[in-house]
Formats: sequence, structure tokens, C-alpha cells
Amino acid sequence: MPELRKDPVVGRWVIVASERAQRPNDYRATAPALRNGPCAFCEGHEEATPNEILAIRPGGTRPNAKGWQARVVPNKFPALRIEGGLDKRGNGIYDLMNGVGAHEVVIEAPQHLLSITELPVSGVRNVLWLFRERMADLKRDQRFAYAMVFKNQGEAAGASMEHSHSQILVTPIVPLLVEEEMRGAKQFYDFRDRCIFCDIVEQESRLQERLVLDEKNFVAIAPFASRFAFETWILPRTHLGRFEEIPDTLLTELAQVLRTTLRRIEQALASPAYNMVLHSTPFSSGNAPWYHWHIEIIPRVTRVAGFEWGSGFYINTVPPEDAAKFLREVRDA
Amino acid sequence: MPELRKDPVVGRWVIVASERAQRPNDYRATAPALRNGPCAFCEGHEEATPNEILAIRPGGTRPNAKGWQARVVPNKFPALRIEGGLDKRGNGIYDLMNGVGAHEVVIEAPQHLLSITELPVSGVRNVLWLFRERMADLKRDQRFAYAMVFKNQGEAAGASMEHSHSQILVTPIVPLLVEEEMRGAKQFYDFRDRCIFCDIVEQESRLQERLVLDEKNFVAIAPFASRFAFETWILPRTHLGRFEEIPDTLLTELAQVLRTTLRRIEQALASPAYNMVLHSTPFSSGNAPWYHWHIEIIPRVTRVAGFEWGSGFYINTVPPEDAAKFLREVRDA
Repeated sequence: MPELRKDPVVGRWVIVASERAQRPNDYRATAPALRNGPCAFCEGHEEATPNEILAIRPGGTRPNAKGWQARVVPNKFPALRIEGGLDKRGNGIYDLMNGVGAHEVVIEAPQHLLSITELPVSGVRNVLWLFRERMADLKRDQRFAYAMVFKNQGEAAGASMEHSHSQILVTPIVPLLVEEEMRGAKQFYDFRDRCIFCDIVEQESRLQERLVLDEKNFVAIAPFASRFAFETWILPRTHLGRFEEIPDTLLTELAQVLRTTLRRIEQALASPAYNMVLHSTPFSSGNAPWYHWHIEIIPRVTRVAGFEWGSGFYINTVPPEDAAKFLREVRDA
Repeated sequence: MPELRKDPVVGRWVIVASERAQRPNDYRATAPALRNGPCAFCEGHEEATPNEILAIRPGGTRPNAKGWQARVVPNKFPALRIEGGLDKRGNGIYDLMNGVGAHEVVIEAPQHLLSITELPVSGVRNVLWLFRERMADLKRDQRFAYAMVFKNQGEAAGASMEHSHSQILVTPIVPLLVEEEMRGAKQFYDFRDRCIFCDIVEQESRLQERLVLDEKNFVAIAPFASRFAFETWILPRTHLGRFEEIPDTLLTELAQVLRTTLRRIEQALASPAYNMVLHSTPFSSGNAPWYHWHIEIIPRVTRVAGFEWGSGFYINTVPPEDAAKFLREVRDA
């Protein structure tokens, strides 16, 4: 059983999941080789994954067979286990609990596509729809506090399979960075009675210099204090705290905005590795009018060096205004 | 002039330093090629670096000439500038200030060594002595709040020069992670009237299972909630908040402990890239009996994937007990 351990100083939780690991001796070897298709995620190889949890099957085909457009399966090497209680406990000054949670994979296409942007808007919408449905379902489990929906694109971003996919990791605690966002946003709200993310959307729409995309219901921006070169966030204009409550009417536009944003990053930076993370109000939070779901995209074009790790302090050599201008001016291929 | 910008939600400061950058168009190319020696850091090439700030010259040779054992020079491409005022200001909901600070390079050897462990203990001691002297000097500047002393070893850890060196980045604000450590440690102190790092040293010395080295005045441990495989911390046994106050009598033992720890990591993991960061009480803090300086070493043997970035939540596949055992059993070559 994996363990969740808390850093006694800063309160950061870490999953210690040795079952996923190579043995220490194996650490001399590094990067896992990505396999070329067809792979375990391809249509016709459904037996290579654990049984599907949810899938889009327009023809009404049966589970774990051909005929799907996108499917969600349990991660074959889960970082957390779905069964059992948390068994929270101490060990001297340390705190830990069982590594209970869920770890699912969203396979985004039946073909061996290397990027979600190779899908049409309707295919991207399928993926977003699956995110929403899985979050709404997993939220019902009282043990779970947060669902991290994320994508590692490319080997340099941590992907171990090249077939386009995302992951959902559901944890019994709220991750530190989300807790900090909640805390900061609440401070702002307590003082001004406004959501800070709404203020960001308003200010960026007005100033325009950091806008990447300016659509009816969404904006894509280079955030003012971007940690990374070409970091890009997508935010809904209308306040909404929880991604799992996004109405159907917005899913198609979000799919189009996400697809266009990622295509521009791919074209501008020669299809870089990137990470994408959905931020949403924790399951375990009550009504939190200060928080606003959004998507963060981090191209991996520069290395993160030691002092960033050791300090949580970043050097970004591309001003967000320059990055936004560059991405605005990309001609769609 | 670089800018310091504050993330309006979590309060994280970022250096936006476009002068160091390639232009956006250049971001298609990635990794800088490390040059083979002899290089600008080698003895006899002193004119290739800015004028030295401090050096160890046992023969009393003149500055910026041959005859040194280790030297400190300004970074040729500084992330922050030494001149000028902070000019703190707002921009709508955002906060920023001028990128004022210091950015120095500690060249660890006159020969083109690729690792600090190729130096004898006395050479490592020289480096630690320079860290201490520079911190004590920089602290006198009232504009500065924190000195980050760090080392990027190897290209994968962000090094752009292969000649063994460290960096000192002095900032007008306290980095978020250090502030969190200070806050967490103070909470513990307020409740228990003890330093949590002293408690960690005590518990780890007693349990032994996460001990890597157990010396008279220092321990090296795999921390209980290690974020990374083979993460290793070095802590002094006796409470001391500020590295710049370390007495001469401890420097030689620390040099030996650091050298042995790094050598074991190099031997166990085939000389991996790693980052090393010194954590010390901020210049700007008053007396803070809850904080305890220490060194964190993070081998870069696994990739950090998207959800770690997006959440501050880590998966570590090597339990620290296994990592410590493995490093304890390395036979010194």
C-alpha cells in the first residue's frame, strides 16, 4: 500500500509509492523509452488496459471492445489505491496515512495520436466531458478531497506513453499549491468581496497586452507573474468555482479555446513537451466564492534549476507580454 | 532592468529577466551546450569573468590573476542588478518592484574539475568558507532579504558551465518556500517551545533507518517526506539558524560530510545531475529560534511531471528508508 507522508515543516504531502518504482539499483538508467504505436491505448488493444470506467461509444458498442472515441481506465500502475481506509496516524513528530485515492487515465483517441490537437474540436470536447463526469462521480466518495486532472505531453514532461492521454489523480488531501491559492484568493475576497480571478480576467481583457485568446466565454492569458516562459492560463469569464459544474453549453467553446491555445504553443515552439493542469475548488471545500477554476499550461522549454526547487522562486527570461504577443501572432496552420 | 513580479493569488515572486534571455523565436532550440575545458572559469582566464569579489589566494597573489584556489565573481548574466532602489509599485491588482539584488558565482577550483567532490576536504572547506563570508557581507545591505546559495550540477540540473561552481542569488524578498518553512517551524515552536529541525535530528538519530551519515556535529538524512528519490538533507546537530554564523571549527567537518554525501550519491547513481540548496534564516528576519540552517540535495534521477507542478504534491517511488540504506552501504571508492 502506498503511503501519504506529510513534511513536518511546511505541511506538504508526498505520495511514497514504492510499488511503482524500479529498485534503487535501477536508478542509474533514466528516461523510459516511449513505445511507438500501436500500443496498449490503441483501439483493438482494450484487453491491455484494466476494465474501462467510462467511455464515449456513439454506436452503443459494449465496454472494453472497439467502437469508442475516448475512454477512461484505471491507471495500471496507480500511485494511490482505491480500496481501504485512510488510517491516519503519527510516528513521533511525523504524520502519515494510507495512500488511498484514485488514479485514472483518459485515453483521448482510439488512433495512435501524439497530440490532443490532432483531434477535431468535438474530440477535445469528449475529453473535457469525461473530465467533468469523472470529477462529479469521484466527488461522491467522502474519503476524497481533491481531483487533480493533468496532462504530461512528451517525454520531457514526464509522459511514459506517447499515445495522447490525460490523468486524473484523486487524493484524500488538498495539495499545498491549491491550498495556497485558496488561502490567497480568500484573503482578497475577505477584503474586497470580489473573486481575484474575476479581477484578473477583467484587467487582462482591458489591458490586452498579456492576452493570447479573447473569446466570448473564455480568455487565454500569459499570467503577469508567469513562472515559466510561455506559461499560459485559460480562465472562464463568468465566475465558476468547480469545473465539474461547467454547463454543456460551454464545453464546445472551451474545447475550441483549449485546442487553439495548444496548437499555437505547438506551432510557436516546435511542439514542445508541456504540462497541463486543471485547477478547481477542492471537493472538501464548502461554498468558496473566492475560487475560480482554470487551466494552467506550462511548456517545458527551459530547465528548472536548483534555486527554483529550493526556494519556490522562479526566473523567467521571457516577459509574459512578449510571450502573449508571440502566441497571438502565430498563424494557424 | 529585470523586474520582480508577485503572483496576486499565492504571493509568489518571480524574476522577469528578459535581458538574460534568448529571443522568443530562439526557444525552439533548447539545451545550452556545455563547453569543454579550459573555460572562462579556469585559472589563467581570469579576464573572461567580471572582476573578482573575493578569492582564496594563499600565496598573496593579486586579484584577477593566477594563484587562487577558489574565487567569487559577479555572474556575467545576472538575474538581478546590484544598482538602484526597489521602487515598489502597483499596476492595477498586480505588485512589482525593480529586480535589484546580487548574483555571484563561486568558482570552486582553478582546474577544470567537473565535480566539487574531486577537491580534497580542504578545497570543499574553501567553498563553504566563501559562502559564509559572502553571506555575512551581503547581509549588510539593507535592501536584501535573503541569500540563496545553490549549485546546479550537470546539464539536466540547469548548469550552463561544466566547470564546478556554485551561485549566490541575493533577493530583496524572501522566497515563498523559505517563508513557508519559517511559518511551519514557528507554529511548531509556538506550541512546543522547540525547534522542529532539532526534533528531526533527534528522531532520525534515534531511529537510524533514514540516516545516511551520522557524524559528530552533523547528520545526513533521507527526509521522512522526501519529494524526490534519493533526496538528502545535511543538518547540524547543534541548533544554529544562520549559516553565516557557523564557527570555523565546524567548517572542516561540514566539508567532509558534504563531500562524502555527494560522493555516495555520485557512486550510487552514476554521477547524476543534482541540485543543492542551502536554507538559512532570512537576513530580514529578526531572532528566529525556530529555524535551523540545512542543506538540501536533490538528485535529478526522475522527471517531475505535470501534476507536481500544478499541485506542489509529489510522488516519490523510492521510500527514503530504502534510499538511506542504499547510500549508507555505498563503498567509498
